[in-house]
Order: sequence, then structure tokens, then C-alpha cells
Amino acid sequence: MGIDTLSLPQPAAADADRRTQALALIARIPTIIAASARARAEQPAIAPDPALGEAANYLYMLTGARPDAERERALDTYLNTVVDHGLNASTFTARVIASTGSDVVSALVGAVGALKGPLHGGAPGPALDMVFEIGTADRAESFIREKLERGERLMGFGHRVYKVRDPRANMLAAATARLFEHGSADFALYEFVRQVEQTALALLEEYKPGRRLQTNVEFYTALLLHSIGLDSELFTPTFAMSRAVGWVAHYFEQQETERIIRPQSSYVGEQGRIWVPLAER
Amino acid sequence: MGIDTLSLPQPAAADADRRTQALALIARIPTIIAASARARAEQPAIAPDPALGEAANYLYMLTGARPDAERERALDTYLNTVVDHGLNASTFTARVIASTGSDVVSALVGAVGALKGPLHGGAPGPALDMVFEIGTADRAESFIREKLERGERLMGFGHRVYKVRDPRANMLAAATARLFEHGSADFALYEFVRQVEQTALALLEEYKPGRRLQTNVEFYTALLLHSIGLDSELFTPTFAMSRAVGWVAHYFEQQETERIIRPQSSYVGEQGRIWVPLAER
Repeated sequence: MGIDTLSLPQPAAADADRRTQALALIARIPTIIAASARARAEQPAIAPDPALGEAANYLYMLTGARPDAERERALDTYLNTVVDHGLNASTFTARVIASTGSDVVSALVGAVGALKGPLHGGAPGPALDMVFEIGTADRAESFIREKLERGERLMGFGHRVYKVRDPRANMLAAATARLFEHGSADFALYEFVRQVEQTALALLEEYKPGRRLQTNVEFYTALLLHSIGLDSELFTPTFAMSRAVGWVAHYFEQQETERIIRPQSSYVGEQGRIWVPLAER
Repeated sequence: MGIDTLSLPQPAAADADRRTQALALIARIPTIIAASARARAEQPAIAPDPALGEAANYLYMLTGARPDAERERALDTYLNTVVDHGLNASTFTARVIASTGSDVVSALVGAVGALKGPLHGGAPGPALDMVFEIGTADRAESFIREKLERGERLMGFGHRVYKVRDPRANMLAAATARLFEHGSADFALYEFVRQVEQTALALLEEYKPGRRLQTNVEFYTALLLHSIGLDSELFTPTFAMSRAVGWVAHYFEQQETERIIRPQSSYVGEQGRIWVPLAER
């Protein structure tokens, strides 16, 4: 995903500085994530290589090794796939902040704050956690059946918006398959994950008939990011590195409206309350 | 405004840490603002005095002198008056971030980012700027008339929500009047500002008849904060120091709902667009 392919609304002259700032911010986020991950591992930061694209550079700055073409392509597909997705809570946060005329850094910092919350979708870690917890294919059915019997939710299946198969899932499934077919990742893991997926889908149909719960984006994302060598603690930051481009595009689109987002609210609490001084309560 | 008078929704046991964190954050904001203002003036920070209330402590940390009772009372009235005010953009930002289950620091940082924007209300600086630009009472009518002839907006008058007199304006006007009556501020300034206000209201009725534009909260706020000795660059941070309490209350109220704020959106752009590789455009 090159920045020059990004189609932002054409900014007014007064927005030129903000556009430069936004592009610099998008460019720096992978560098910040990689340097921070290496600092946690007590390793020195690696400067970006101007000859590499965004996906390859990110993997290079994380590991010190230039990735093979298949890993680069898989990450590039992922970054392009999750770059934007409607008015989810983080994007909406960016738009509310943008609506006041505030700066793009404030909008993105707010969006990251929203993305941190556990109710925000797009955190792919838990989907793969279940796969590793199952461990071997013969345990899949009993494990998932017990989970469903306890009324627990299967991470990696179903989506708040999509009641049909999420169109992004096909792209990510194909990118993931390609990664394994080219030997860039362990094919046995791929086969095991597909078995878990098929088992889960069959049991979801049995326990929640008619709900049409499908494998979601997080499921394939987790497998893809794991297979190119990312720790699960990097999944959400890597998501943010892509989504930042969407946040920026929304920032500029919102700025164009020059309308503040400020909903009306209705008081639904108790009426006629009397203030009582603290000492008399 | 003491923290112990704050009526937050009773938190669940799991929220106890977040409540502690929120109270610590509210307590630290004035200290951060004061230390930052002094650092800009190349003066050393002053530690808070545990014997003082929030308003007095803030003025003490800014100046190194304990304020007189009237100044303390005026600032206390201001802080209490602006602590919360519906779903303005910054409060709504805090609620959207809270709705994902994110932490209270993220919610407040996002809210501050929204407050930074020039379209966000509650920035009282510009109202007083006009008063100082007018300079003397005899220039008020011609100055304001020229502004209205050019179709410019008068800062300090009118409000997006209130078409009647903002109920907060009375509290702030009374607190400001008290400050001048007790000799804590220059009475000549007070009389001049009231003359500007009366002139502005009369001319607004002449130029925009029936619009009922009233003196708004920002007008009295600017006079009040100026009169207790605050530079206009401290007006918005001082507002934020009070509003942070409202943001925190909204944070906990939103958390209780356990519902993510994630609006649906409708695509209204061009249909049937075909992707063209960059090299072929």
C-alpha cells in the first residue's frame, strides 16, 4: 500500500499543511510500532529503508530482515483490506474530533483511544488464541461443543454488521492460502486451522440454527498475521497502522462539511430533584 | 468544587480501579496546566497545597500567591457552572471512546482533542478580545456597527442551543459582579464591559430583529477569568479542568450501558466506479 495510491479528497489551500502532517503521521506509525516492539524486547530500533514499500518496511523494522515477496504481499493485502470500514467507533471518534476543526493528530490519537477498548471490533488476537488452545484437530469438536454448551461466544465467527459472509474474508482467506501454498508458512498449521474452522461452522449451525454465523475477518487476519511472523500483541497496532489511513481520509471528508457533530440529548433521569448541601446529606 | 462532592454513578467492583484513576486524573489536570503555564514563562512549578480547595490551589500553583476569598469564590462558581453541558463534541467524543470499554485516560485525551477545535464552543477568549479591541466606551457603537455591517459574528453573543438567555449566564454574571463589587478587580473595566454588552445587544436587535441573540456564557466567562488574573491563553485549559469532571461522569455513565457507539452510514457517492491501476490513470 503506497501512500501515493491514496485518494484523499482534494484539500483546500488552507488544508495543505494538515495534509502534509497527515501523510507524515501515516508514514511514521509503522516506524513507531516497530521501534516500540523492539524496545520492549530490549533491541535497538531499526531505521526504515526508503527502498522498501510500507508492508516490507514494517517487517524489516520489526525483524531486521527483508521479508520474502509472499510475506510482503500477504501483509500488503491485509493492510489494504482493513484500511477503512464504515463508521466503527474509532473512525467515528476521529470524525467527531475532526468536526470541531481540531488537528489531525488529535483525531488519530482519539481514534487509537477508541480502538483500545475491548468492545471495538478488529482485534484479531482472540480468534487465534482459541485455535492454539484447541491444539490438535481431534480435540476441536469437543472443545468447541463445550464452549457452545456453556453459552460462550466463538471468537472469529459472526459480525455485528454482516449477516452474510464478510466480503473481506474472501480476500484475506485467499491471501492466507497463497502464503501457505508458497511455503512461506507451515502448511500443517493451515490445514489444522481450516479443520477448526469447518468444525466451528458445523457446530454453530447445530447450536444456533438459522443464525448463519460465518467465519469473520478476524479469523483469517489472525492466521495471516501469525503466519508472517507477528506476535499477537502486534495484531492491533498493525491494524491501527492500516486503519490510520482510513481515519485520515474520514478526517478530511468531515472537515469539508464544516459541521460540528454534537447530538441533542434528552434527560431521562429523576425530575424535581432538590440540591442538598453535602453536610446535610 | 471539591472532588468529594462529585456524584458519580456507583461503579461496579471491577470499575474501582478506573474510578481511582479518574479521580487522580481530575486532581492532576490543574497541576499539569499550572506547571505548563509556568514552564512557558520559564518559572519553576509550584506543588499543590493540600490545605487549599481546587480553585484556590489552581490560582496558587499559577502565581505562587494564595488568592483572596472573592477570587477563589468566583473561580469556584465558574468551575461549577461549566462542569457539564449536554452532548457537546468533546463530551460526545469521551462517550464514544468510553463505549468501546477503553480506559478513562483515553476518553479524556480524546475529549481534549475535540475541545481544541475552533468550532467547539466554550472557548471564551474571543469575547474579551473584542472588548479590548474596542478600547473605550465611545468607540463601542461604531466598532460593533461596522462589524455587523460587514456581516461578521459578534463573539460572546448567541448560542447554538439556547434561543433564550443561557441559564448559566446569570450565575456567571452575578459571580463577576460580586468580584468587582468587593474591589477584587478594576470596577472601571466592569462598567466598560457592561456598556459594550448593552450596545451590542441593542445593535443586534437592530440588525437581526427577532433573533433574540443574548449575551452568552463565554462573554461573562472571559470577564470573570480575566478579572481573577488569568491570561486568555489559560481560558480553554481552565475550562477543560472543570469539564474533565463532566467527561469522567459521562465516561462512567456510558460504560454502564455496555453498548458501543457505532453509527450506520450510507454511501452517497458515485456508483459503479471501476478501479484503475495507478500507472494507467
